[in-house]
Amino acid sequence: MDCKSWGSRDIVFLCIIVLSLIHVSLGAKVRHFKWEVEYMYGAPDCQEHVVMGINGQFPGPTIRAKAGDTIVVDLTNKLHTEGVVIHWHGIRQLGTPWADGTASISQCAINPGETFEYRFKVDRPGTYFYHGHYGMQRSAGLYGSLIVDMADGEKEPFHYDAEFNLLLSDWWHKSVHEQEVGLSSNPFRWIGEPQSLLINGRGQYNCSLAAKFSNSSISQCKFEGYEKCAPQVLKVRPNKTYRLRIASTTALASLNLAIEGHKMVVVEADGNHVQPSAVNDLDIYSGESYSVLLKTDQNPYKNYWVSIGVRGRDPKTNQALTLLSYSATPASKLPTTQPPVTPRWDDYNHSKAFTKSIYALMGSPQPPKTYDRRIILLNTQNRLNGFVKWAINNVSLVLPSTPYLGSIKFGLNNAFDRKTPPDNYDSSYDIMKPATNQNTTQGSGVYTITLNTTVDVILQNANALAKDVSEIHPWHLHGHDFWVLGYGEGKFKNGDEKTFNLKNPPLRNTAVIFPFGWTALRFVADNPGVWAFHCHIEPHLHMGMGVIFAQGAHRVGQIPKEALACGLTGNKQNVDA
Amino acid sequence: MDCKSWGSRDIVFLCIIVLSLIHVSLGAKVRHFKWEVEYMYGAPDCQEHVVMGINGQFPGPTIRAKAGDTIVVDLTNKLHTEGVVIHWHGIRQLGTPWADGTASISQCAINPGETFEYRFKVDRPGTYFYHGHYGMQRSAGLYGSLIVDMADGEKEPFHYDAEFNLLLSDWWHKSVHEQEVGLSSNPFRWIGEPQSLLINGRGQYNCSLAAKFSNSSISQCKFEGYEKCAPQVLKVRPNKTYRLRIASTTALASLNLAIEGHKMVVVEADGNHVQPSAVNDLDIYSGESYSVLLKTDQNPYKNYWVSIGVRGRDPKTNQALTLLSYSATPASKLPTTQPPVTPRWDDYNHSKAFTKSIYALMGSPQPPKTYDRRIILLNTQNRLNGFVKWAINNVSLVLPSTPYLGSIKFGLNNAFDRKTPPDNYDSSYDIMKPATNQNTTQGSGVYTITLNTTVDVILQNANALAKDVSEIHPWHLHGHDFWVLGYGEGKFKNGDEKTFNLKNPPLRNTAVIFPFGWTALRFVADNPGVWAFHCHIEPHLHMGMGVIFAQGAHRVGQIPKEALACGLTGNKQNVDA
Repeated sequence: MDCKSWGSRDIVFLCIIVLSLIHVSLGAKVRHFKWEVEYMYGAPDCQEHVVMGINGQFPGPTIRAKAGDTIVVDLTNKLHTEGVVIHWHGIRQLGTPWADGTASISQCAINPGETFEYRFKVDRPGTYFYHGHYGMQRSAGLYGSLIVDMADGEKEPFHYDAEFNLLLSDWWHKSVHEQEVGLSSNPFRWIGEPQSLLINGRGQYNCSLAAKFSNSSISQCKFEGYEKCAPQVLKVRPNKTYRLRIASTTALASLNLAIEGHKMVVVEADGNHVQPSAVNDLDIYSGESYSVLLKTDQNPYKNYWVSIGVRGRDPKTNQALTLLSYSATPASKLPTTQPPVTPRWDDYNHSKAFTKSIYALMGSPQPPKTYDRRIILLNTQNRLNGFVKWAINNVSLVLPSTPYLGSIKFGLNNAFDRKTPPDNYDSSYDIMKPATNQNTTQGSGVYTITLNTTVDVILQNANALAKDVSEIHPWHLHGHDFWVLGYGEGKFKNGDEKTFNLKNPPLRNTAVIFPFGWTALRFVADNPGVWAFHCHIEPHLHMGMGVIFAQGAHRVGQIPKEALACGLTGNKQNVDA
Repeated sequence: MDCKSWGSRDIVFLCIIVLSLIHVSLGAKVRHFKWEVEYMYGAPDCQEHVVMGINGQFPGPTIRAKAGDTIVVDLTNKLHTEGVVIHWHGIRQLGTPWADGTASISQCAINPGETFEYRFKVDRPGTYFYHGHYGMQRSAGLYGSLIVDMADGEKEPFHYDAEFNLLLSDWWHKSVHEQEVGLSSNPFRWIGEPQSLLINGRGQYNCSLAAKFSNSSISQCKFEGYEKCAPQVLKVRPNKTYRLRIASTTALASLNLAIEGHKMVVVEADGNHVQPSAVNDLDIYSGESYSVLLKTDQNPYKNYWVSIGVRGRDPKTNQALTLLSYSATPASKLPTTQPPVTPRWDDYNHSKAFTKSIYALMGSPQPPKTYDRRIILLNTQNRLNGFVKWAINNVSLVLPSTPYLGSIKFGLNNAFDRKTPPDNYDSSYDIMKPATNQNTTQGSGVYTITLNTTVDVILQNANALAKDVSEIHPWHLHGHDFWVLGYGEGKFKNGDEKTFNLKNPPLRNTAVIFPFGWTALRFVADNPGVWAFHCHIEPHLHMGMGVIFAQGAHRVGQIPKEALACGLTGNKQNVDA
């Protein structure tokens, strides 16, 4: 419909009105963003360091869209020597697998000075985020929020008056380049616990808002309010319902969030509605998101602590703190009580109780009753020529320099290991003890999955290199949600599938395995592309903790040439699909 | 000559012998190297930091070859997110402009996981080095020595009994990534003076070998000898002549080297023989190399200081020290005297006297008597939207994402600014004062030079942004040597060419401009390719202090496809020349 060809100015004007009406009725918009990624000075926890920012902001700008909208981000790499990509965590990229933003998997890293257009549809409402997916650039600060509201005319199955967005992360003072060197060194040097936890990119390292309740000699934070590391206070009115959108893009830390004196009702997990359940505190692992509803039904002449602490690892990091501040009370007035105490880091029963309390909302899509293929993935910590690695069924993932999406589509046989990694592990393996043979292999092989089949994945945890140690790993699947069918202790065995919840399992994109346990997932391979499935702990992925699922490569549409401009697909740029 | 086609095993054997003899008589060899670049832990000045190394070594391995040899380096990028290239400083790359190792100019940066083959001839003997030429990777530690001996049967025009190699550099504790952020920030943050000076990658930050002569409270270094930061002692026998090969790959520092009690005779500069001249100390700027002869004619029952200090900037860095140790004396015995004092940093007369004392050895190639084109390049420090830049004739160089060599050869008009930067500057510009209009422009334009013409370049220094400040800049030309025709004070003016030395000007690849002065260079544009000409101070180049010379693009042979695998030439990989 070309308005100008009608000729008369009045008609053009009328035409624009008509088009606007159509637009409103359709609701869907194309939302354009021009972003530049660069390093900049920042002080996320009040101590100055270099941080990766977008358009001079850390965290990056929040994208706010409506379900059905198309997002277009022209991402320009203003780094001097590093490539960059951005992954849109939780967006399934239906029909646009090249926009998934995974270097070596869905696209070539964007070279310094170049611009890549990410164009994809946000088909479902929910609380999402985006982050770097190359080296450890996420931990360097490359992340931000992506919030998708209900399409016009549609309503959430719950009511709220207003909302807050809390993007959680962890922060190290050592640069990720130096962290990477340690992880790749022999002897191995672990990155250690984070210096700070951040809420929307803000934390306090050298001071605490609750210093007087601390056993240490840490000083009381004094903020004028304008400081970039001053906490964002949640200002509320009494007797209202607030939606808190909480997402975790931590590099490492599993977190627990509690709000003094207030219960929270969980209503969304990873962009999917869940059966409302009231909790006093909420565990959130890297890669997860939740929405909770909070009623401001407490004494309005007080303020209340929002506290976030570390779970699953012996914490050496102070709680992140901010305030829930009622409008009747000055935001500067600190509570006279101690902030909520984070549950003990190794109280796994607490963690399991929370995680298992998440069920799909009635009416949610149900899983197929059977599976076509079951892949059991044993998670082990290993050695490779003296270097410490993580491996899945004894293969530690190394990414190829030519991204899989292009090399698989074009049948380039030399781009990665042709050997398919195994669907299972040696049944005699004792998951409760350090491996007798700690050596692993390294590989870039791919799990090829038949399009539109149903796949069960059993994530099997095991003892790490040290005795009596088994860690939590939050596994994140690209391009799909999966149903979490169940969790179990010890080794998954035949018959355990009888315990699967096929009635109302939650649909998620991230699920944890608990120490020495297993987690069962089911998904339908209905999205042609090549998709990473990996531990969302960034240094663990860096150490090889992931696998690659390829499906329906022949059904992948024409890949933009910019996504192919490297390695063996460098000269495939003008080849049609 | 195909041996195998002769058929009989004996004949093949004979054939191999014959071929070997031919090989020996020709002398020239192909020397293969397999290198992997990665970050690693190092302690160049005894304090641990991340350093860029090759095959686990810092500095990188020394290449030793004979004139006429072909060097083949298969360079694999083992960095996680950064591209990499290596420039072979002083090697003219006759016929192989794609092997010059300049990102955005001669090739695409090598992506992580990829390998690029550098294959080039070292046609002339001399003291060279190699280093990173992408972002500030040189300063991160990516450098090493490249020594080319005389071809078999040929002799140096001087005698020596043995030699030492001293590769000089400067070292910061702040990562180059953080340095780059400061340079690109508004307000501007300068990198400051180096923490240490290094000799062959070794320095001492927290201690001094000559602590007792220091005014500060610095402690005495105590080394067992095996430490990676222990100085390499020059162990000599009495009454011999030693050749010291000295090269500077500093990021910033201009240096002065002196050896206690010993004169040095300069015999080589930047790979060219020079008229021998005896000096007590030697100034060396970043990008330069010298050979000096040293007679061990002093008391052999003593050791002597080798000291290196900073010139041209108010030094805040301790001298680098090592020992000249006579065989009769234990290497651990320190001199009882103070190390040679470096000439005052601003004693420019001393600097000029040394630099001007370098003449070509009789019989060296002489410059053409006239020039075809004169390019006058005004060096200024400027502002651009509040950012601090260096500019040449008011253009601050920004490199394009598609390397020039490919885009010019293939006539890709959108790859860089089509506007040619000017051959001169406004004659009313007062070089003795800060500019009245401090703003500069930014550009990626190219000086196109007609092949086989003679070009004079007048480098014109000027006052920087601050009053009464003008700095030393060592300018380095890729792909050529130039004759240094002369130096002058103030603004170069008509008639100054009468002072040019056309009789025995030294051939060099690097020459300085002194504060508020000019330097005149002449070269013959006889090497088809695209060549950088820039200040060799790495942060200055980063801030735009360079120009691009293109010549004879139509005569450039087939560029290896790996050098083109990015930007607009990404799909030119299979196009023949």
